[in-house]
Amino acid sequence: PLLRVIGPIWQAQLVETALLNIVNFQTLVATKAARVTLAAQGQPVVEFGLRRAQGIDGGVSASRAAYIGGCAATSNMLAGRLLGIPVRGTLAHSLVMCFDTELEAFRAYAAAMPNNCVFLVDTYNTLQGVRNAIEVGRWLRQQGHEMIGIRLDSGDLAWLSRKARELLDQAGFAQAAILASNDLDEHLIASLKQQGTAINAWGVGTRLATAFDQPALEGVYKLSAVRGTDGQWLDRIKLSEQAAKTTNPGVLQVRRFFESGQAVGDAIYDEQHPPAGRWVIVDPADSTRRKDLSSFAESQELLTPIFRAGRCVYQLPSLDDSRRRTLEQLELFHDGIKRFVNPHQYPAGLELGLHQRKMSLILKARGFNAGNPPSECSQ
Amino acid sequence: PLLRVIGPIWQAQLVETALLNIVNFQTLVATKAARVTLAAQGQPVVEFGLRRAQGIDGGVSASRAAYIGGCAATSNMLAGRLLGIPVRGTLAHSLVMCFDTELEAFRAYAAAMPNNCVFLVDTYNTLQGVRNAIEVGRWLRQQGHEMIGIRLDSGDLAWLSRKARELLDQAGFAQAAILASNDLDEHLIASLKQQGTAINAWGVGTRLATAFDQPALEGVYKLSAVRGTDGQWLDRIKLSEQAAKTTNPGVLQVRRFFESGQAVGDAIYDEQHPPAGRWVIVDPADSTRRKDLSSFAESQELLTPIFRAGRCVYQLPSLDDSRRRTLEQLELFHDGIKRFVNPHQYPAGLELGLHQRKMSLILKARGFNAGNPPSECSQ
Repeated sequence: PLLRVIGPIWQAQLVETALLNIVNFQTLVATKAARVTLAAQGQPVVEFGLRRAQGIDGGVSASRAAYIGGCAATSNMLAGRLLGIPVRGTLAHSLVMCFDTELEAFRAYAAAMPNNCVFLVDTYNTLQGVRNAIEVGRWLRQQGHEMIGIRLDSGDLAWLSRKARELLDQAGFAQAAILASNDLDEHLIASLKQQGTAINAWGVGTRLATAFDQPALEGVYKLSAVRGTDGQWLDRIKLSEQAAKTTNPGVLQVRRFFESGQAVGDAIYDEQHPPAGRWVIVDPADSTRRKDLSSFAESQELLTPIFRAGRCVYQLPSLDDSRRRTLEQLELFHDGIKRFVNPHQYPAGLELGLHQRKMSLILKARGFNAGNPPSECSQ
Repeated sequence: PLLRVIGPIWQAQLVETALLNIVNFQTLVATKAARVTLAAQGQPVVEFGLRRAQGIDGGVSASRAAYIGGCAATSNMLAGRLLGIPVRGTLAHSLVMCFDTELEAFRAYAAAMPNNCVFLVDTYNTLQGVRNAIEVGRWLRQQGHEMIGIRLDSGDLAWLSRKARELLDQAGFAQAAILASNDLDEHLIASLKQQGTAINAWGVGTRLATAFDQPALEGVYKLSAVRGTDGQWLDRIKLSEQAAKTTNPGVLQVRRFFESGQAVGDAIYDEQHPPAGRWVIVDPADSTRRKDLSSFAESQELLTPIFRAGRCVYQLPSLDDSRRRTLEQLELFHDGIKRFVNPHQYPAGLELGLHQRKMSLILKARGFNAGNPPSECSQ
């Protein structure tokens, strides 16, 4: 569980769709942003997605989640205004094309924004564009300003960035940054890194703001227990032929265990029936795979109260604090879990007692008694 | 071009992102909805996507576009309220699970909404759920009401729907509808249709509201001409190593040609230089593939004025009219174009004169003179 709601059923149902919409989408994009940021290995990633985002609010939510996930800034002015996210951008191809030559366009841009020049160099010919940027960069320097850098938006980014770096360095612009964009995602960035690039910063749009390769997180909101008239919680379970769609019963909490500052496993358990002895978790996809977490002394409950009896009891962190927390939390997981190809699976499972109660509820609901022959046969 | 903007550059750039965001996403979802609706072959499709949509406004925009694309209704109450789209839905699993038995839950639901009962039957055991629905359906009938039907949300929908149909028919509920949901899209619906199902209506959520298999339409907004001080339009072109990213120059319009009420081809042409003689179009991906559209007497300009000098000169159609237009327009294209597997490609290309002007602009910008040896060699 990411979130637990306790309340009268009609109230709990009223918030269902809103919670799912907000939590599913923003978790999805924050996760994608964390992946892209990991791929960039400390270099800044700017979120560039609004033009292709799913609705205007979809774009603003995406900018917010991308920032929390680790992006350094957004090109979405509205997100900057509404949420205070740092805003970054460059000039557009259309501005370059307005002028008779690229050089004239760069000169006009530099005159208008002398302290904010990232020249988009690929409108006609990328390397000629770099040379034009250098020429205008020299003029800027004479005026007492420095260009920030250039932006590549098409072509072979690995090769072009190395050639552009040579040209910039030879011309005395070793500090000028090279920003790359063009349908980037964590896989392309990782591949470019592997090829050796001179790129310093990354503009990531469509594939981040829409989480292109998996555009929906299939989170659900399920009833797991009802309180009887005597105040006791009663388990509830929804069956399904698809095992992943069978729900988990109980009043659920998640405990994360640590060893030497590294997260080693998460146990989903029932607060009403915490284990008396050992903390053993069962893999939900293979019940014979189990892990005993008892030897790890350090642990933490992941669900914390936000509202109690309708009043907020939580101090909402700033976006910057949320972003910092993401980056810190990612450090708790070893690299094998975070790699993009064939990652190691982080152990997260049902606490053994809960697993057993779930199994017997399923068997009972299907007319079997756990451990006994099917009731149909025993009659 | 889907849209043409003429104005001072700063005004045209101000609307860029908003237009791209709105047009890209809603075109994408309307297209997906049209595909899903085609697959349903006249049976109603209800859009169920809000929980997984990309932002709340992403969900409302998706409901709007899905309705325009052919859906019959939405489960998004906010879209119903804001836009007047018909709202449809069923009970949730959590309502069923609130009660000690499914039968009690169905009875309570029927008592509360006697004229709006679509029983969700797969919480525990689908066919037992159908029997429970029948039992409560009989009670409803005694009260002078009729259940609308049942909803299947998991398992083998083809087989379950046929079994459910048998049970309903045998019990005298031949009119009760069978609604199916569970990660459906046009491909799954087409496959279910092919297997022979008894499903009457379709609830399509995640894969429609996020256009799951291609969640971004890569539409762009490009400068194609600037007006000189003498009032003449001057072509502009953006080059790219990727041919698809090279822009089309000119003041563009699209003319669609018809034969016997069927669309036979679209010509993108420059209004300033319409062809003097024949309308020949050139395939943008293969310039040797051409089609002469001159023999088709009937044609229509696709771009129509919406704003002129800041004033709206267009009568905005109602959503219902837009939806009707979609369904009518789809009739103009033959089935081969609309099939999902290996579809025939509809002929749409650059008018020959425009194609030739584009080619010579590209060659000139790259330092070649069309038809002559490269200028570098001729010096």
